[in-house]
Amino acid sequence: MGKMNLDALIASSYENFYYLSGHESTFMYTLRMSEVALAVLFRDPNVKTIIIMNDFEAAGVSSDLPNCELRTYPTWVDVDDPLGLKGGKYEGKRPTGHQAQEMFGLLQKTLAEHGCETGKIAVELNDMRHSSVDTLRQAAPDAELVEAKGLFTLLRMVKTTWEIEQLRAACAYAETGLADAAQSIRVGSTAKDIVHEFQLSLMKDVKGLAARFHMISVGASFAPAHRFETTPATTGDVIKFDVGVDVNGYGSDIARTFVLGNPSETITRIYRALKAGHDRLLEIVAPGISMQAAFEDAMGVIRRSGLPNYNRGHLGHSAGLSLAAEEPPFLGPTETTLFQPGMVICLETPYYGYGIGAIMIEDMVLVTENGCERLNQLSRELVSL
Amino acid sequence: MGKMNLDALIASSYENFYYLSGHESTFMYTLRMSEVALAVLFRDPNVKTIIIMNDFEAAGVSSDLPNCELRTYPTWVDVDDPLGLKGGKYEGKRPTGHQAQEMFGLLQKTLAEHGCETGKIAVELNDMRHSSVDTLRQAAPDAELVEAKGLFTLLRMVKTTWEIEQLRAACAYAETGLADAAQSIRVGSTAKDIVHEFQLSLMKDVKGLAARFHMISVGASFAPAHRFETTPATTGDVIKFDVGVDVNGYGSDIARTFVLGNPSETITRIYRALKAGHDRLLEIVAPGISMQAAFEDAMGVIRRSGLPNYNRGHLGHSAGLSLAAEEPPFLGPTETTLFQPGMVICLETPYYGYGIGAIMIEDMVLVTENGCERLNQLSRELVSL
Repeated sequence: MGKMNLDALIASSYENFYYLSGHESTFMYTLRMSEVALAVLFRDPNVKTIIIMNDFEAAGVSSDLPNCELRTYPTWVDVDDPLGLKGGKYEGKRPTGHQAQEMFGLLQKTLAEHGCETGKIAVELNDMRHSSVDTLRQAAPDAELVEAKGLFTLLRMVKTTWEIEQLRAACAYAETGLADAAQSIRVGSTAKDIVHEFQLSLMKDVKGLAARFHMISVGASFAPAHRFETTPATTGDVIKFDVGVDVNGYGSDIARTFVLGNPSETITRIYRALKAGHDRLLEIVAPGISMQAAFEDAMGVIRRSGLPNYNRGHLGHSAGLSLAAEEPPFLGPTETTLFQPGMVICLETPYYGYGIGAIMIEDMVLVTENGCERLNQLSRELVSL
Repeated sequence: MGKMNLDALIASSYENFYYLSGHESTFMYTLRMSEVALAVLFRDPNVKTIIIMNDFEAAGVSSDLPNCELRTYPTWVDVDDPLGLKGGKYEGKRPTGHQAQEMFGLLQKTLAEHGCETGKIAVELNDMRHSSVDTLRQAAPDAELVEAKGLFTLLRMVKTTWEIEQLRAACAYAETGLADAAQSIRVGSTAKDIVHEFQLSLMKDVKGLAARFHMISVGASFAPAHRFETTPATTGDVIKFDVGVDVNGYGSDIARTFVLGNPSETITRIYRALKAGHDRLLEIVAPGISMQAAFEDAMGVIRRSGLPNYNRGHLGHSAGLSLAAEEPPFLGPTETTLFQPGMVICLETPYYGYGIGAIMIEDMVLVTENGCERLNQLSRELVSL
């Protein structure tokens, strides 16, 4: 923040709010509300991080957070105190909906208290709702607002030991579900059946069902489907799992492909090319190598190995908090970021073809001092069922 | 649209895109991306609705949609055509991420084709990401952009027969899960255990696990929790279910409260007051009554029935597409909208108290010609377990 001359960094999305506050907001995660809570990190490390939340959700947050201070604003839900346990009950009229003005008003007060009301403040400008940006600008008219995305990417892309453990657990947890579900597949199985088995398997774990996504395709229907397909699998079909589960807010994203019976020559050729590229990624990902170099190298291998027209925007991405499965930086043609120890990266070589379906290998790796460690244990071969 | 002098209405959120296109976008619903697809409805009923999507998701959409036309833009995922089934394979370089400029560029072309490029266009201005609004304004600099929220609320608040059937099914489906999970509760049960039973019950249904949310609280911990509590229930604890499940994009939102053993006097008093207010809502909701009148009336009943300081921003809301559980219009103090036949409304009288927990009754009702029909079957009493 010093280098960028920033006075404060403000999180307003579910993922960055969790990253700075340690609190997973139900309003944000489950009910998909945006900008209903803020976390404010000041440049001065002696100043506590300020967490601004509505009083209903805040009732679930410990009042003695380490190095954080909680400030609340009223929402439509009242909290009564009939036993006189807390005192200071809110007496005002409850609003019908979310109070963006109150929330950003509290932010302005917080900035002013720390002499930052005319400072340079990084906020999630591009991803905030348009109305939130307007309300923020009205509340803090003298602050210089700059985009925070790049800084959050820099902070989040190298993981702590604790974060690596969550991602390692999320990877193992998804692999168990994937392996259990794969075992259940028969001629006649549908994508919906396989999703069901995947969910049942996860529910056996003490963590419970924490699937982020399970993009499971059977046969030629490769397009992402919010309602799972009920077309029965027939001999020769490819079955693709692209799945992710959550452990303490950190998500895996892994993929494997199976074939019912023996693969056709076309499928064998495609798989061989994808695997050659994926092997190459596992071989070259190491500190000091750029993401664009890894992308270009592996794309070349795939094209020379049987898929001369293979086309793709990226071959992987950072793993972590985003529920979109993919988060920056990406292994793409313009990404100059170098791999660094402590990064957890998904490496993927997906293929989708009309009349063929989806074929995909995706592994998670931890970048180490001199290469990378696979977090996956499952075979990377095309397995016949 | 004629009355508002609108030339076109554009949907860009998961819910309104589904409402206008009939397609549930996985990128939007599962991966939580915003403004990655658009649906454009023109005022002229003879002009087809234009659906603008990325080519990967579009591969899952039928090419002969009734009264719709599909237009696509390239994304980072390539779709191959090795068997020559489709022709016209995309040869350009695939981008790393979402192409907002391409998407809004297609929109501008579409508007221009229909002579609307300088027209009055309703868009989801407030809810769109700030960066999307900027990109849209650059792509369509001469259009007059106005907020679409009010129009979508008007369109969505009165349901078709098909929509009512989905909501009726979603209500029944959630009640089965709730009843099954309630049966499993014992001294020692945790919120996490009860959520598990709720999920298992839903999975027995042919629709599979389609929970939108399951805000289940045990004892005094009433705050919404993204990670379910593992505090064991003890005798006298209230156990509150506030749950919703999805049927074809339409969601229920219902609540019931149980008590382990006999309720304390305080809990009995609170429940009696809430139920009196809830009874009153069921009695008075009918066409021609305003939402604010119903709110004020029921608030008065609750305050006179044992909770003189009962405070709350609203006592219910429209049900339907929103994953936030609540959608406008609200039974709140300023809502002048009148109940109309065909509305499906959630009526709720929630209470949260320190040292007490959550106590809540929430029913879904269909507004009929001369009153309302409850879609719930479960008892509205405080049931001892």
